[in-house]
Amino acid sequence: MNMKDRDIISIRDMKKEDIEYILEKSEEMEKNMEKNRNLLNGYVLSTLFFEPSTRTRLSFESAMKRLGGEVITVAEAKTSSAAKGETLTDTVKTVEQYSDVIVIRHPNEGAARLAAEAVEIPIINAGDGANQHPTQTLLDLYTIKKEYGKIDGLTIALMGDLKYGRTVHSLATALGYYNVNLIFVSPEELKMPSEIKKYLKSRGISYREISSIEEIGETDILYVTRIQKERFPDPTEYEKVRGTYKILPETLKLLGNAKIMHPLPRVDEISPKIDRTENAIYFKQARNGIPVRMAILSLVLGVIE
Amino acid sequence: MNMKDRDIISIRDMKKEDIEYILEKSEEMEKNMEKNRNLLNGYVLSTLFFEPSTRTRLSFESAMKRLGGEVITVAEAKTSSAAKGETLTDTVKTVEQYSDVIVIRHPNEGAARLAAEAVEIPIINAGDGANQHPTQTLLDLYTIKKEYGKIDGLTIALMGDLKYGRTVHSLATALGYYNVNLIFVSPEELKMPSEIKKYLKSRGISYREISSIEEIGETDILYVTRIQKERFPDPTEYEKVRGTYKILPETLKLLGNAKIMHPLPRVDEISPKIDRTENAIYFKQARNGIPVRMAILSLVLGVIE
Amino acid sequence: MNMKDRDIISIRDMKKEDIEYILEKSEEMEKNMEKNRNLLNGYVLSTLFFEPSTRTRLSFESAMKRLGGEVITVAEAKTSSAAKGETLTDTVKTVEQYSDVIVIRHPNEGAARLAAEAVEIPIINAGDGANQHPTQTLLDLYTIKKEYGKIDGLTIALMGDLKYGRTVHSLATALGYYNVNLIFVSPEELKMPSEIKKYLKSRGISYREISSIEEIGETDILYVTRIQKERFPDPTEYEKVRGTYKILPETLKLLGNAKIMHPLPRVDEISPKIDRTENAIYFKQARNGIPVRMAILSLVLGVIE
Repeated sequence: MNMKDRDIISIRDMKKEDIEYILEKSEEMEKNMEKNRNLLNGYVLSTLFFEPSTRTRLSFESAMKRLGGEVITVAEAKTSSAAKGETLTDTVKTVEQYSDVIVIRHPNEGAARLAAEAVEIPIINAGDGANQHPTQTLLDLYTIKKEYGKIDGLTIALMGDLKYGRTVHSLATALGYYNVNLIFVSPEELKMPSEIKKYLKSRGISYREISSIEEIGETDILYVTRIQKERFPDPTEYEKVRGTYKILPETLKLLGNAKIMHPLPRVDEISPKIDRTENAIYFKQARNGIPVRMAILSLVLGVIE
Repeated sequence: MNMKDRDIISIRDMKKEDIEYILEKSEEMEKNMEKNRNLLNGYVLSTLFFEPSTRTRLSFESAMKRLGGEVITVAEAKTSSAAKGETLTDTVKTVEQYSDVIVIRHPNEGAARLAAEAVEIPIINAGDGANQHPTQTLLDLYTIKKEYGKIDGLTIALMGDLKYGRTVHSLATALGYYNVNLIFVSPEELKMPSEIKKYLKSRGISYREISSIEEIGETDILYVTRIQKERFPDPTEYEKVRGTYKILPETLKLLGNAKIMHPLPRVDEISPKIDRTENAIYFKQARNGIPVRMAILSLVLGVIE
Repeated sequence: MNMKDRDIISIRDMKKEDIEYILEKSEEMEKNMEKNRNLLNGYVLSTLFFEPSTRTRLSFESAMKRLGGEVITVAEAKTSSAAKGETLTDTVKTVEQYSDVIVIRHPNEGAARLAAEAVEIPIINAGDGANQHPTQTLLDLYTIKKEYGKIDGLTIALMGDLKYGRTVHSLATALGYYNVNLIFVSPEELKMPSEIKKYLKSRGISYREISSIEEIGETDILYVTRIQKERFPDPTEYEKVRGTYKILPETLKLLGNAKIMHPLPRVDEISPKIDRTENAIYFKQARNGIPVRMAILSLVLGVIE
């Protein structure tokens, strides 16, 4: 499959075969780190971050550099040309002159797509507001597949803020391509949007909606996200909900062999005591971002097929 | 010509043969990107920016990295040692210990020259206040020459804020070495300083001063710069002037085959509708910064002659 | 000696043989810059700075890059994940996934040790509050040894804020391993802590405590540090002290052939007129940070033994 010059804006743009292809290439990347050390020699990546996201930026930069590519960084794009009144379009068109691929993060929905329309070189969306962050979803899928050798047939629970959470929306959408059982665990106020549920139904995916950890039962994956105080108009509502969506050592007993994932950073949704258990795979998950981003960078640069 | 260890502080320090030599080497750089991929292996550039200028910094960093050199970056020099009360001289003398060449940007006039006097390694001025930004001028000349195959014999119009604009002052000065016809297009309040006009006269360069786009007539190049509100004591004066120095699709008809340049960032001096026309060369102009800065870095490091 | 995977947190963790070994390897690094240009190919260093320290960051990054290694930088770690409520432990555990070694700077005492306990990869402390900055001490020792070919037998004066100065505490501690004569020069309010003096006595090191430059007499090294206004409850006290701990051209006559060191940045403790004398070695001292940090990075990565 030739993905040269393709923009990676939204998981919704991807067919199942695109996703599978990227996962396969990610696996090859992970197996051939040493061999690929000069794969991207001579290529320059620009990371253009209009809001801070250290972990995503470092992950892309590490991926590029471990393949022998070069990186030029704008960690605080807001304080620069944009401050002088330049449009986003002009900024990316200028950065295009200096580089071969751009990773962009922007607080506004649709910013990455706008950028992609302005330039010829590939744009990778590293988060545009509450909208999309497709490489996060790809590394989530890669992590699930790596743990179980497959995605089909698994039970996957998504927990926390399912209403506003960009990560879980994308992941649920992508899981629509697989034969999975989904469990949505959230307070009443933060349920998965009906749009996504309709989509899953249309693809024949079964799901359960529940409101407590105790109801999960057996699951292969528990994907935890943070519940933010700002989402609740009434602070007492938040306080009620807060304590009940935490993974503590005693919670683990309810979850059996479930692998626990989290997009990070976490605040207190998962007790640090969980970190050293076999269940915790969230730091491994972060590490999986490297081969996945290596594959994506190499594919859109047309260096691998 | 040996330019090893030379500081690049001001276009006024340069003889015509220096300029021509750099343009020639820039052309060679552009033709041999692939061949020169390891030219600067083992060299370290420090970019020391006391005020943000993402585009200039990225352009230098991309040039260095595409030649196999390394870069260490201080994008916000003000918040660091300088904040602890260190003098500029001490800062650059320290950075000298870690690198082979320094690119400096500073809000104060004369800062780059001061830095150059403090250290042994070459200093490249990437803008010192309203004063000089010589590599911008060199890439402007390179762009003109690339478009027309020559500079001599061309008609070149400079438009906008000709009184305070660092870019147009430097460019006009450098064009004094060539056999060109100049047109200065500006509101009465923002005319080219008499000092520069005297200099041009002394070199036998003919120029016209006009105040509207309509009077330009035929020109090979129209170099547009922004008119800043702050320059006008009376805001109503600014409002009057503002609309009349914009390049719109209908303006293009007056300009024939003129190539339009701009140092960027633009705000609204040039309509985005112009971007896809043959006239617009301002993004190409930005791209030309790469080979020009490659040539300059390689020359002052003594890696090419 | 195998130092693979060792954390470099405090000079107090080091035996004399560790220090000597690092100094020896630093010397080899300095002699073989060209030969080692690809020594760290394929390794990624993360510099994680929770407070700005441009000179330390640049020195590490330059060392890493001159050995062919790659660097990913968080110059302003405070504004990123930490701001979202992430613990230091989680931040370093995440960064661990992207890199092979971490250099950390943090305003809180003990932060580096905490980081080291959280991760498997080596952590190098680049300053944790008023506590430790071991690579500074190692480059100080390297500088002394390079100047005199030895440390044993030398007279070394430490001057300035000996009470709160992290640098002089570490250096005095390390010098406890050598057969040196120490002179402590400070105002009454800022004398060397008794804890350190006790330690030195226990190791049989002789020292003198004095309060003026005039009393120093012959010394091989004069190590100058800044006296900060904030240390004095009474500003008039500070004003009295201030002028008397400055190195001026006339002071030099009292000091004979003494070599003057300073960790930098300086404010006005040493007149710039001293810079061009044979006595001044503080910029050389900064330069010595490169081979010392090259040695440390290579040792903890296990690339040299």
